[in-house]
Amino acid sequence: MLFVDRLEAHRRAVEERLRDFLGETGGSPSTAARLAEAMRYAALGGGKRFRPFLVIEAAALFNVPLTEALDTAAAVECVHCYSLVHDDLPAMDDDDLRRGRPTVHKAFDEATAILAGDALLTFAFEILGRPMTHADPAIRAELVLGLARASGWQGMAGGQMLDLEAEGVPQDSIGIGRIQALKTGALIEFSVDAGALLGGASAAERQSLRDYARAIGLAFQIADDLLDAEATPEEVGKATGKDAGAGKATFVSLFGMSGAREKLRSLGADAITALKPFGIQATALEQAAHFVSNRRN
Amino acid sequence: MLFVDRLEAHRRAVEERLRDFLGETGGSPSTAARLAEAMRYAALGGGKRFRPFLVIEAAALFNVPLTEALDTAAAVECVHCYSLVHDDLPAMDDDDLRRGRPTVHKAFDEATAILAGDALLTFAFEILGRPMTHADPAIRAELVLGLARASGWQGMAGGQMLDLEAEGVPQDSIGIGRIQALKTGALIEFSVDAGALLGGASAAERQSLRDYARAIGLAFQIADDLLDAEATPEEVGKATGKDAGAGKATFVSLFGMSGAREKLRSLGADAITALKPFGIQATALEQAAHFVSNRRN
Repeated sequence: MLFVDRLEAHRRAVEERLRDFLGETGGSPSTAARLAEAMRYAALGGGKRFRPFLVIEAAALFNVPLTEALDTAAAVECVHCYSLVHDDLPAMDDDDLRRGRPTVHKAFDEATAILAGDALLTFAFEILGRPMTHADPAIRAELVLGLARASGWQGMAGGQMLDLEAEGVPQDSIGIGRIQALKTGALIEFSVDAGALLGGASAAERQSLRDYARAIGLAFQIADDLLDAEATPEEVGKATGKDAGAGKATFVSLFGMSGAREKLRSLGADAITALKPFGIQATALEQAAHFVSNRRN
Repeated sequence: MLFVDRLEAHRRAVEERLRDFLGETGGSPSTAARLAEAMRYAALGGGKRFRPFLVIEAAALFNVPLTEALDTAAAVECVHCYSLVHDDLPAMDDDDLRRGRPTVHKAFDEATAILAGDALLTFAFEILGRPMTHADPAIRAELVLGLARASGWQGMAGGQMLDLEAEGVPQDSIGIGRIQALKTGALIEFSVDAGALLGGASAAERQSLRDYARAIGLAFQIADDLLDAEATPEEVGKATGKDAGAGKATFVSLFGMSGAREKLRSLGADAITALKPFGIQATALEQAAHFVSNRRN
């Protein structure tokens, strides 16, 4: 199967699962209908579903079928979607546009957006706690611990705080790298590690996959910075040129466009080297590394 | 031991555990120091720690020592503290004062308050995922599932949404009861159930404790409504008279002061009846029911 078809197939499967999950109790009178609607708006509004793809493909290295990785993949996507909803809030990055549509606080209101983000984050852990996500409760508990660490104060939320604090403050590559590692890197790394956990990977295999994930996580951010500098809002479905406008230090402001592109290439090579132990089995993850280095939205 | 001394002893134990947890990596350069500070401000700023008390005392019914219930109790308190931080935000209830101090968004700023709430919520699940919280991963996974359900779209977050939507809209006792059951009842019920889970309670024992929790949860809300109508800000450490000011339907506006007090008394009796199967062992939970019905802050 071509990589783009594979990405699309997984995207559909994840979308359908999220739709099942979030539509489940639509008719119950005790559910806050407006909150459920905002959660669906936030979680079903498009997106590449790249993190779920990583969960599914890392699990597939160990012959875990898609159906058995899907709930974990959906949980990771709920956390990603929550982070977008909260990051877009007026008090944070103040964005009106996301994936080509009004952001949640624009389509609904701020209170609803805060609660929808809170509820999506909470729902991710509800999914991971469910017996149907994985038969072994020890795996479920480890997934919970990993997702919480990747998303919390020492992961994604901490990275967003550092990123807000860094606005207008000169940063070196160590500082920018630290923010990236927390803000976007930690959840990408967890996505790959979650697949490894579902597949019962050995410590050495988990380490190789972590090296892979770290390289593509950083590449993902550099590609994002390049898109912010180069692309139009129509191409990426959100505001661009924001980093320069906010005087924000990025890999592009630090290395220049060609330096950033060079770094992107070398990270792609690192990612592929890390996959060596898995041989031909790892083709989809290899292609994902190419995809990250060359993405246009 | 007198009830107030017992409550105070548990309060101190929980406070100390939270302090350990949230101070843990204070020195790490990759931690967002401002975020950690806001989390400590939110989680260590006083409070009765009533939900942790319920976890610890419900577990004690099954001879679980305090030390083995403490981490679960701390996790529940993190969720409670996160909910206060987000509920106080300008886009939500817009409160400047909490436990006699400026609310988190006043002491820091809105972005930091949103992130501190997010991070406390996430941290609750990190605690529950840890092997040291309980040796059996099946119990940990069940605690995660229960806490997520109690806190999410079909629990506390859903209740907050319904409560915001209900402002200025006439409500009957069924509507108010539904909001209460989600907004405050679900987490109180989970607190008691978490203790039962830690103690390996039977299905019948869990049901008795759920009946108890439902009664005190509703009593807790009615007492809150009475305090909002009667007390001064100095007595309760937050703004009062807000419900009437916002034209908000409460148990007091519905039943009147004496009707609400009567309901409080009958719920106290229901709670104590539900504890019958546990005999003398349940004295602390009985006293907790009296405490809820008679609280002055």
